[in-house]
Amino acid sequence: MASHHPIMTKEDLIAFLDREFPQIHMGGQSYFLEDIGPLSARMRMDYHDRHLRPGGTISGPAMMTLADLALYAAILGQIGPVALAVTTSLNFNFLRKPEPRALIADCRLLKLGRRLAVGEVSIFSEGSPDVVCHATGTYSIPERR
Amino acid sequence: MASHHPIMTKEDLIAFLDREFPQIHMGGQSYFLEDIGPLSARMRMDYHDRHLRPGGTISGPAMMTLADLALYAAILGQIGPVALAVTTSLNFNFLRKPEPRALIADCRLLKLGRRLAVGEVSIFSEGSPDVVCHATGTYSIPERR
Amino acid sequence: MASHHPIMTKEDLIAFLDREFPQIHMGGQSYFLEDIGPLSARMRMDYHDRHLRPGGTISGPAMMTLADLALYAAILGQIGPVALAVTTSLNFNFLRKPEPRALIADCRLLKLGRRLAVGEVSIFSEGSPDVVCHATGTYSIPERR
Amino acid sequence: MASHHPIMTKEDLIAFLDREFPQIHMGGQSYFLEDIGPLSARMRMDYHDRHLRPGGTISGPAMMTLADLALYAAILGQIGPVALAVTTSLNFNFLRKPEPRALIADCRLLKLGRRLAVGEVSIFSEGSPDVVCHATGTYSIPERR
Repeated sequence: MASHHPIMTKEDLIAFLDREFPQIHMGGQSYFLEDIGPLSARMRMDYHDRHLRPGGTISGPAMMTLADLALYAAILGQIGPVALAVTTSLNFNFLRKPEPRALIADCRLLKLGRRLAVGEVSIFSEGSPDVVCHATGTYSIPERR
Repeated sequence: MASHHPIMTKEDLIAFLDREFPQIHMGGQSYFLEDIGPLSARMRMDYHDRHLRPGGTISGPAMMTLADLALYAAILGQIGPVALAVTTSLNFNFLRKPEPRALIADCRLLKLGRRLAVGEVSIFSEGSPDVVCHATGTYSIPERR
Repeated sequence: MASHHPIMTKEDLIAFLDREFPQIHMGGQSYFLEDIGPLSARMRMDYHDRHLRPGGTISGPAMMTLADLALYAAILGQIGPVALAVTTSLNFNFLRKPEPRALIADCRLLKLGRRLAVGEVSIFSEGSPDVVCHATGTYSIPERR
Repeated sequence: MASHHPIMTKEDLIAFLDREFPQIHMGGQSYFLEDIGPLSARMRMDYHDRHLRPGGTISGPAMMTLADLALYAAILGQIGPVALAVTTSLNFNFLRKPEPRALIADCRLLKLGRRLAVGEVSIFSEGSPDVVCHATGTYSIPERR
C-alpha cells in the first residue's frame, strides 16, 4: 500500500463531523477527534453519564459508536468530505471492563480500495496499554470520478 | 438443543431492563420488549430523533444497541435475572437503508451453553420483509450453581 | 427483496464448481451441492478422513470451506457463472462439536445488491436439528452490464 | 496485561502441532511455525498446489487454516500443551489477492483470560508489507487448576 497522506486536516474533519453527525453531541460533546494521519485516526470519548451502565461501566453501544466514528474519520481523511461512505459491516470483541475514565480509539486502515475500505480499531482506557475493545469495519465507498 | 421455555415473563424482563439499563430510555422510551419465547425475543425501536443521522436515516449505533438488547433479553429470559451475562463479541452486517419508521429486531439463540450463549438478530423496518441489519453475538455467562 | 429465481440449475452449478474449484475434490469428492433455490443453496460434506482432527472431530477449516462454498453457490445461482464474485469477509461461530457424520450447510442470501452480496449459513450434522457452526459472509460482485 | 513469557518453546510447539494436527501436513508439509513469543506467534504457509484456486491464487480456506493455526499456536505457547483450547469464533477480512508465494501470518493475542483468549492475525505475502487477510479469533480455554 503506497504511503497515503490524508487530504483533510484535523480541523476540516472536526467541522465535517460536527455538521454531519450533530446527534453524537446530544447532551454535551464527549466524542473528540484527536489526531488524523496516513490511513489512521485517533478519537477520544470522555467519560460521561450517558455512556454508562449502572455501576459506572461504559456501555457497549458507547464503544461501538466510538469505533465507528474513528473508522469513519480515518476514511474521510483519505478520500475527502464529499464522499458518502456507508458502513457495511462491523465486528467487535469486548475484551475487558473499561476503567471509569476517557477511552481512546486508535484506528488504522488495512485497505483503502476503489470500492471498499477496511480498518481496525483498538480502544483503550486513557493511560492504560490494555485493549478493552477491538473492532474491524468495512465501508462501501461511492464511485469517485 | 432441547426445547427451552423462558423462565422470565415478558413483564419480568421489562422491569429488569428498565432497572438495569435506565440510560436506554434517556430522552424518552423508544426501546420496547415486544415478545419473549423459547430461545427467542423480539424488541422494537421507535423512530425517534435521537436515533437519526442527518437526512432522517436511522444510525448504525441505534441499530447496534437494539440488537444487543434483543440478544440480552433472549438470554436473560432463559437463565433469569440474577445472571450477569457479558457481551464478548458482536458482528453486524448493514444491508439496506432502514425506512423512516420503527425497527423490529427478531432474536434467536443458536446456543445456550454453560459458559457461552450465541444468538443471531435480524432487524427489519416495521411492516417490511427485508432485513436491514443482521447481527450475531456471543455472551459470556457466569457460572451457575 | 423481490422474489429471486435462480438463473442456474443445480446441474449447471455443479459443472461450474467442478471446473472452477477442482482442488476441493482432491483426495476424492466430499463436497456436494444438494439444492439450489431462490436466494438459497444447500451443500453437503461427507464425513471423510481428510476433514478430521485427531479423535474424529470434523475440523474448523473443513466447515469454513463448506460455508464458503454454500455462499458462493447461492450467489452464482442468482447471478450466473460469468460473474467473478470474491469473498470479502467471513464470520464464523462454532457452536457444538459436530457428530461423526456428514454435514449439511443451509445458505440463505440476506442481500443481493449491485456490488455486494451478503448471506448466512447454518451447518448441521445430518439428521440433527442443532446448528454446529453459523457463518455470515460478504462477497464483492463485479460490475454487470 | 502483564508481560507474558511463553511456557512452550518453538520446538515443543512444533512437536505438539505435528502430533495433534497431522492432517495439516497431508500431501507434504506446508505449514511451519516460525516463531513464538510473548502473546504472539508467526506461522508460514508455503506456496503449494493444494492451496490454490485455478489461476494460481491462494484459496480463502488455506488462509483461514493458517490464521487458525497461528492463533492456536500463540495460545498454546502461553498456556501449555495440556490445555484443550477450542475455537469459538473466527472473523476474516480478505483484503487483497495474495502474491504467488509463501504467506506469513503474524498473530498477537489481545486477551488471555481465565476462560477466553482473543487474538488477531495479519497475513502477508512474504516480503510484502500489505495485509492480504486480517483475522480475529476467540478460543474457549478449559478450566485450569
